[in-house]
Amino acid sequence: MNLLLRIAYNGAAYCGFQSQNNGRSVQEVLTAAAGKAFGFPCSVTGCSRTDAGVHARGFCAVVAPVGNGEDHRLTVPPGKVHRALAKYLPDDIAVNGACFVPADFHPRYGVVSKEYVYRMRDARARDPFQAGLVWQLKKPLSPAMIDRMNEGAKYLVGKHDFSAFMAAGSKITDATRTVYELYICRGADGIIELHIAADGFLYNMVRIITGTLTEVAYGDREPADVADILAGRNRAGAGKTAPAEGLFLEKVTYPSEWGIEWQCD
Amino acid sequence: MNLLLRIAYNGAAYCGFQSQNNGRSVQEVLTAAAGKAFGFPCSVTGCSRTDAGVHARGFCAVVAPVGNGEDHRLTVPPGKVHRALAKYLPDDIAVNGACFVPADFHPRYGVVSKEYVYRMRDARARDPFQAGLVWQLKKPLSPAMIDRMNEGAKYLVGKHDFSAFMAAGSKITDATRTVYELYICRGADGIIELHIAADGFLYNMVRIITGTLTEVAYGDREPADVADILAGRNRAGAGKTAPAEGLFLEKVTYPSEWGIEWQCD
Repeated sequence: MNLLLRIAYNGAAYCGFQSQNNGRSVQEVLTAAAGKAFGFPCSVTGCSRTDAGVHARGFCAVVAPVGNGEDHRLTVPPGKVHRALAKYLPDDIAVNGACFVPADFHPRYGVVSKEYVYRMRDARARDPFQAGLVWQLKKPLSPAMIDRMNEGAKYLVGKHDFSAFMAAGSKITDATRTVYELYICRGADGIIELHIAADGFLYNMVRIITGTLTEVAYGDREPADVADILAGRNRAGAGKTAPAEGLFLEKVTYPSEWGIEWQCD
Repeated sequence: MNLLLRIAYNGAAYCGFQSQNNGRSVQEVLTAAAGKAFGFPCSVTGCSRTDAGVHARGFCAVVAPVGNGEDHRLTVPPGKVHRALAKYLPDDIAVNGACFVPADFHPRYGVVSKEYVYRMRDARARDPFQAGLVWQLKKPLSPAMIDRMNEGAKYLVGKHDFSAFMAAGSKITDATRTVYELYICRGADGIIELHIAADGFLYNMVRIITGTLTEVAYGDREPADVADILAGRNRAGAGKTAPAEGLFLEKVTYPSEWGIEWQCD
C-alpha cells in the first residue's frame, strides 16, 4: 500500500509544490522528509502543481516506496504519519491527515472536486500577521461591491468552457470544467474570501476569476460582463490575474470507492 | 507635537521591541523608517520592552524629532502616518493608528491598562500558518480543563502582590499590580486564548500565569493552588514560563485626558 497524505503548507518560501529546478519545492522537501522518516527512498506525487507563493491547507500527495525491496514497506499507522514526518519537516509544511491507498491510486486523476479559497484584505493599514497570506487590496470593498462580485460569479457556476479564465499559453485543449460553487463573503476576521469548488481547474483559473470579479466590484466592469467574457473564450477579455499569495488549496475530494478516511491521532 | 503610533508586529525575527545589542529590534527598524519617512532624525520610545519572539497588535510608541531644528517638525497628518511609514517598514511591522501627543507624554508612564492575549493550540497536527504565532500544546485541552484554568484564574483578578508570577532576578521592588480581567476561552478558529488586562505587568508575568494555568488544566495542580502560589510570593512556587511565541500585546489604554484618538485613513 502507498500512503496518501493531506498536507498544509505556507507557500511563501517555495517555488510551488512541484520540483521545477527554479527553487526549493514542497515536493523535494517532502520527499527528503519521507525518506528519513520511513528509512528508505520514497517518491512523492502531488494532486496538482501550485504556483510559487500559493498555499495549501488540504493538498493531497501520495508517498510510495522506490524500488521493490521486501523491507521497503510503508507500515506506519496512518494516524501517526503526521508525527513521524513532523520531525523532518520545516515549520511551514505539516501533514494533517493520512490513509493507505492501493498502488493504482493517482492523486491527480479522477478527482471529484477541488476547493480553493482566495483571501483578500481591504483594511487600510497592513497586518504583519497576514503578510504573504492575503491579497492586500488598495481600496475597500463595500457590501454592495461584494454583492456585485457575487452577481458576476453566478455566471460562472455550472459546466462551461473556461478558456477566458486560463493563462495565455497553456497547452490544455479541453477547457471545459464544472464549477459547483462560487461565492464571495467577508469572514468574521474581516478577510474577504472567494470560495470556489470545481471538478478541476485550468492554469491560473482561480486567480483570473478573482482578478476579474474585483474589477466588477469596483465598477470597472458590470456583473453581466462576466457572461460575455466567458462566452468570448479569450483570455484577453478577462481581468487581471490576482497575486499568488491570496490563494489556498483547501480540499480535494476523491471518489468514495477509494474509501479515504483521514487519520491524525 | 510628537507622534504616538499604534503598531502591530510579528516578533519572530526580532530580539524584542527595545534595542539591546543582541539582535535586530523593532525599535531600531522603526527609528530608521521614521527618519526616512519624515526626512530628519527621530527618536522612538516604546510603551514596554517585549521579549524576543513576542508579538504585538497594539504596541504604542512615541516618535519625536531629535534636535530642535525649526524644519524638524512632525507635520504629517496622523491618518496618513501608516502609509508614510509603510514604504520603509518590512512586512512584519505595520502602523495601524497614530495621533499627536504633547512633548510631556511618555508611553510607558500613567498607563490605565494593558491587555495581552496568550494563544495556545491543541490540535494534534501542526499548522504551518500558526508557526511562531502560538504555543503548540502536546495534549488537548477539554472543556473541563479550560474550566479548571478559569477557576484558577479567578484568584488572580484584583489587586495583589504578583511576586510569584515575576521572573526570578527581576529588579522590581513593588510587585503589586491590579488585574482587571483574566479569562481563557476557545475561539472559533480552535485556538485557546488567555485574555488578561491589568494596570501593569511584571517581567514574564503573563507567560508564568499561562504556564501555571496549563498545569492546573492538566491536573498537575488544583485550581485552588493558584491562591496559595499567589500568597507565597515566590517564583519557585508557580509553574513553568510559557514560550514567548504565543504572547501578543493587544492594547494599551492611556488616561482620557490625553484625548488620544487613533487615526488611520
